[in-house]
Amino acid sequence: MSNSIGEKFQITTFGSSHGKAVGAVVDGCPANLELSPEDIQKELDKRKPGTSSVTTPRKEDDEVQILSGIFEGKTDGTPITGVILNKNQHSKDYSMFKDTPRPSHGDYGWMTKYGNYDYNGGGRGSGRITIGHVIGGAIAKKLLKIHNIEIISHVTQIGDIKAKPQDYTTLKENIEKNPVRCGDLKAASEMEELILAKKQEGDSVGGIVETIAVNIPAGLGEPVFERLDGDLARILMNIGAVKGVEIGLGFDVANHTGSEINDNYQIENGKITTRTNNSGGIVGGMSNGMPIVSRIAVKPTPSISKCQDSVDLKKMENKKIEIKGRHDPCICPRVTVVAESSTAIVLADHMIRSGFIHPTNLEK
Amino acid sequence: MSNSIGEKFQITTFGSSHGKAVGAVVDGCPANLELSPEDIQKELDKRKPGTSSVTTPRKEDDEVQILSGIFEGKTDGTPITGVILNKNQHSKDYSMFKDTPRPSHGDYGWMTKYGNYDYNGGGRGSGRITIGHVIGGAIAKKLLKIHNIEIISHVTQIGDIKAKPQDYTTLKENIEKNPVRCGDLKAASEMEELILAKKQEGDSVGGIVETIAVNIPAGLGEPVFERLDGDLARILMNIGAVKGVEIGLGFDVANHTGSEINDNYQIENGKITTRTNNSGGIVGGMSNGMPIVSRIAVKPTPSISKCQDSVDLKKMENKKIEIKGRHDPCICPRVTVVAESSTAIVLADHMIRSGFIHPTNLEK
Amino acid sequence: MSNSIGEKFQITTFGSSHGKAVGAVVDGCPANLELSPEDIQKELDKRKPGTSSVTTPRKEDDEVQILSGIFEGKTDGTPITGVILNKNQHSKDYSMFKDTPRPSHGDYGWMTKYGNYDYNGGGRGSGRITIGHVIGGAIAKKLLKIHNIEIISHVTQIGDIKAKPQDYTTLKENIEKNPVRCGDLKAASEMEELILAKKQEGDSVGGIVETIAVNIPAGLGEPVFERLDGDLARILMNIGAVKGVEIGLGFDVANHTGSEINDNYQIENGKITTRTNNSGGIVGGMSNGMPIVSRIAVKPTPSISKCQDSVDLKKMENKKIEIKGRHDPCICPRVTVVAESSTAIVLADHMIRSGFIHPTNLEK
Amino acid sequence: MSNSIGEKFQITTFGSSHGKAVGAVVDGCPANLELSPEDIQKELDKRKPGTSSVTTPRKEDDEVQILSGIFEGKTDGTPITGVILNKNQHSKDYSMFKDTPRPSHGDYGWMTKYGNYDYNGGGRGSGRITIGHVIGGAIAKKLLKIHNIEIISHVTQIGDIKAKPQDYTTLKENIEKNPVRCGDLKAASEMEELILAKKQEGDSVGGIVETIAVNIPAGLGEPVFERLDGDLARILMNIGAVKGVEIGLGFDVANHTGSEINDNYQIENGKITTRTNNSGGIVGGMSNGMPIVSRIAVKPTPSISKCQDSVDLKKMENKKIEIKGRHDPCICPRVTVVAESSTAIVLADHMIRSGFIHPTNLEK
Repeated sequence: MSNSIGEKFQITTFGSSHGKAVGAVVDGCPANLELSPEDIQKELDKRKPGTSSVTTPRKEDDEVQILSGIFEGKTDGTPITGVILNKNQHSKDYSMFKDTPRPSHGDYGWMTKYGNYDYNGGGRGSGRITIGHVIGGAIAKKLLKIHNIEIISHVTQIGDIKAKPQDYTTLKENIEKNPVRCGDLKAASEMEELILAKKQEGDSVGGIVETIAVNIPAGLGEPVFERLDGDLARILMNIGAVKGVEIGLGFDVANHTGSEINDNYQIENGKITTRTNNSGGIVGGMSNGMPIVSRIAVKPTPSISKCQDSVDLKKMENKKIEIKGRHDPCICPRVTVVAESSTAIVLADHMIRSGFIHPTNLEK
Repeated sequence: MSNSIGEKFQITTFGSSHGKAVGAVVDGCPANLELSPEDIQKELDKRKPGTSSVTTPRKEDDEVQILSGIFEGKTDGTPITGVILNKNQHSKDYSMFKDTPRPSHGDYGWMTKYGNYDYNGGGRGSGRITIGHVIGGAIAKKLLKIHNIEIISHVTQIGDIKAKPQDYTTLKENIEKNPVRCGDLKAASEMEELILAKKQEGDSVGGIVETIAVNIPAGLGEPVFERLDGDLARILMNIGAVKGVEIGLGFDVANHTGSEINDNYQIENGKITTRTNNSGGIVGGMSNGMPIVSRIAVKPTPSISKCQDSVDLKKMENKKIEIKGRHDPCICPRVTVVAESSTAIVLADHMIRSGFIHPTNLEK
Repeated sequence: MSNSIGEKFQITTFGSSHGKAVGAVVDGCPANLELSPEDIQKELDKRKPGTSSVTTPRKEDDEVQILSGIFEGKTDGTPITGVILNKNQHSKDYSMFKDTPRPSHGDYGWMTKYGNYDYNGGGRGSGRITIGHVIGGAIAKKLLKIHNIEIISHVTQIGDIKAKPQDYTTLKENIEKNPVRCGDLKAASEMEELILAKKQEGDSVGGIVETIAVNIPAGLGEPVFERLDGDLARILMNIGAVKGVEIGLGFDVANHTGSEINDNYQIENGKITTRTNNSGGIVGGMSNGMPIVSRIAVKPTPSISKCQDSVDLKKMENKKIEIKGRHDPCICPRVTVVAESSTAIVLADHMIRSGFIHPTNLEK
Repeated sequence: MSNSIGEKFQITTFGSSHGKAVGAVVDGCPANLELSPEDIQKELDKRKPGTSSVTTPRKEDDEVQILSGIFEGKTDGTPITGVILNKNQHSKDYSMFKDTPRPSHGDYGWMTKYGNYDYNGGGRGSGRITIGHVIGGAIAKKLLKIHNIEIISHVTQIGDIKAKPQDYTTLKENIEKNPVRCGDLKAASEMEELILAKKQEGDSVGGIVETIAVNIPAGLGEPVFERLDGDLARILMNIGAVKGVEIGLGFDVANHTGSEINDNYQIENGKITTRTNNSGGIVGGMSNGMPIVSRIAVKPTPSISKCQDSVDLKKMENKKIEIKGRHDPCICPRVTVVAESSTAIVLADHMIRSGFIHPTNLEK
């Protein structure tokens, strides 16, 4: 099993939902970046459940400790280890899932592939392991900030409710004003209502999360197999529950002609830009200097309390399953910070790889 | 620049559109697989232009030579090198593109990042370099066939024309019957018409290509950062012109609830299957034994003969550009074999990595 | 900085001498291996200082905690994290080394390359970080034991005192009977005397450590760039203080002819063996089934209390340096377990890579 | 099988002794390096046999073709492919070796591991495949030259004849004056005599090759698992026939105390140097700015015409073997260019990785 991602800026995550700890080792962050536990904690708090009406009421009082990699308040080039000790490890009885995989959950894969599977709370297949992504992302964001790069993710659709597009500034402000992290406040309150309704029904609902990264230099990404779009697609698709990734116009390109959507160049304030950004900031696998825009399709949380069909793998017979517990009726709001983190990890890695950030020491 | 992909089954591609050659080194194919140049040639012929009304009339008489890796008709575990010598290297004058990037083409990225860019025919940014993918894919397919795994790609949409879903057998037959490689013959002829109309206008059109892989064992893919869906998303997004990738229901999950789309388990002929396949054969990053279904969004060929706006990078001034030449008005039909190949490469890699195919010797 | 090694069985280490913790994440150990903290602790205790006359009297009461990767007493295929919290982090004032690199120490490299260097106790350049190697090695050894593979390291030379060769069984017994971990008891006591004499003088002394691995199947290692000898040479040379690595006859091959040292084949009890083992178990980069024998040259500990010449990097002027403190006068005895661990990591990795150990699940 | 080495500057080699071709793909060389086939050819000519009394009289008229990666006389950042078509592929009957491995040759490993082994001329286990290393090394050398880095390898010992140490300038001159590539002309002629005597006897003899790299900046290499000494040890040990690698004093450190061999620092012409270079230019895994000095132990060519014992693997019975043909009685002189190339590949890789050479474009 490979639990690492990234070439120069590389994260290795570990831990499971109900084990002793979850965390990440972040290797390749150059020395001399100011970094404190608070830098990481504030990102982790964004994915914390129990903070609003639309997430699970489970409490996870996660507090990160940095075990290595910081000297006198700055990174020293050595691996940075962030760890969160799990509380409430023995909170609940999950034994009914031991041999009975939950539909559309990873359980069946884990059981089939590894044999010895920690089925408690989804084990390492739990959404909780994205804490590792967020630790890596927090450090990546801090590193990108040096070059003024900023990344925000927001919810653009929940069920049949779609947000109206907003300009970047409004978007940034609005997503902080509602628990759904949607940039269109009217849609946000409808989304909230829909989520609560689904929760009431013991059901869940899917949605779409968009990520925008600004102030990207042209030339990030390697044009054949380590393309920026390919690397983003991979890390975003790797987020549990994601079933699709698109860049720029995405699937809508199918409906268009070249003359309609080609991004023509222009010189604007002495800089080369494109008149439109249908490419979403990436052409030929490389950034072109325009904002990088991606969207991910997030499936409805598979854990629902309605009765479903499963099988008993030991007895090899059909078996009904009901999943009790307090699950997120819609994972989209909490996925936003994971999408931001994942995007940040890829961008930090490529900024180093392409020579925009010095590989060992920011003071060089 | 990294021109390699895959961990155990790894391809490294090289060459450019108008250089001396294009090709691939395929490393990690176990010994004792029967392999001939014809196995590769027949796949290459699928992407050959000039074979139908809907592709460019350019002729590319590509003939592959195997320079290494085969002993007495079988692989011997050493790297397999497939090379195609380029003909007509000096066919045309591309100097007008030297400092003027074509809109929505990789040119600008190449110029910005590397400085010294072979602008002839798009250089290494040309679609022609997918010959390397197809060489790798042909070998991967042959290897997967041992386990009865089969992969087909077909066109499901061109512009506003959508194909009706077909059962697998009909699909397989029908795609061979029309130049668009569409499974719905009625839609296929409408698509052909649309493509020809766009060609007439000097324009191009986008579409969607679906790939189906059958007879996949459960448990392929590693559940965190080397997930099967993540690896497929990366390799598919890495294909030039692709702007979106989805698995199973894909973006449509946003419109649904968990109770609507969760794939319930059942026992069928002594095997565990799911009643539906909304997950597209991958859950928790691992295959579940159902067919793997992905779709990619393919943008309209950016090379169109209509006048477009660009800039002269040397003089830093705006400049009009007209791209003459014989380009594919729609790249989708030729992308199908590249999607098949890319999927095959990822599956072959994971079949070895997960222990289904012996890493060094098929006779073990 | 890359702090990972291994392809399928991969360890990532973190931490520094006087930071909060040191540890390792071990990724790729297949599921269903029984593993307890004691399995790791007993290996760590071998490198613990303060246990005999010949090591530093510093006490390091290191107790390992396993934070992840074990479910119901067995590995579950997820990354195994072993951590040791550092005690006595603020034991001593190292500020005199802040800008003054110790001769033949890594200090100068760290200062030059990273700028922000934790100079306390050598930071991440300290021998203490080999705790990470030993955590990885302990798990690797447990995994190799399934195939009966056993690895022992012993001291063959300290200064001018050379041990007489012993048969394997005597060697195994004798190294437990003396603090030098030398297989020749007479030489061992002379070595002990020499080390104590050098300690008395405020000096240190070098030596040679040999590692023998038995019950290796033929065919481990990949014959060009991931050869077994190359991978062993790398991991062994990566141990601080090692200045040479040899396999089999090693440098003595220079003094011989082919007819003298070629290892002729024979059939012995129905198995193919070689009459001699001058190759040290590896030919053409692959194991041949004979014991794998390597030797490393270990330099005298560079930390000596005698006055030495250095420079003040800030003031750019010459400066004398005296290194007080309780250092190992000879690191060889404690290096043995690191050499065993490093060898185990490479062998475990290649056992998985070559298909001798299943990559995901030992029960398959 | 992995046939690639290097992280940023990466070579992938392919081909076998008697197959159609041998060659290498060199990926990661930044754009804008002037490069011609002659740059590669002149290095290849150094390893060409048949050029002197001490090598095999076999003729290998190898002429390299560059198939990709050069545009207008300069690298363009895309992979550089160098290929040599093998002549005389069917020169000889090797069938007697089909099931009978030659003692101390890789044959047995290849047969055991891969089953289907091209036994003609040693297949991919032949020394001929170091052509790939030399292609990579030639490009690496050209790249390093920008920073004035120079690498030379020379023979210091053959059998019991040892060369006297020479200053760098004399060394450079002298190695061009004798077929052994030894820096001490008196020793060189004795070595030549010894080699010819062994040839006469149908035997072979071993030796030692030293490599010196000058003008290295301080801070190359990553201090834990991707150390410069570890990476050099691996690539040098990966050369067929090498059984030992040492840096600086190497195995002689065992005979010394810290006070005798620690390299004290000094300021010399405003630069920090060490008074001695017992460390061979690498401390703590990183370069310290002093010349990098390594030595490798090269075993006598295992192909000797004297009668030896082997086994018939099919019949599982003992069998005598006599290896006819024109083999190098001593491989050391021809290994020198392979050692230079291997060293150059590692240094070029780390120069890019540590930020001394821009990763994509030399004009940046």
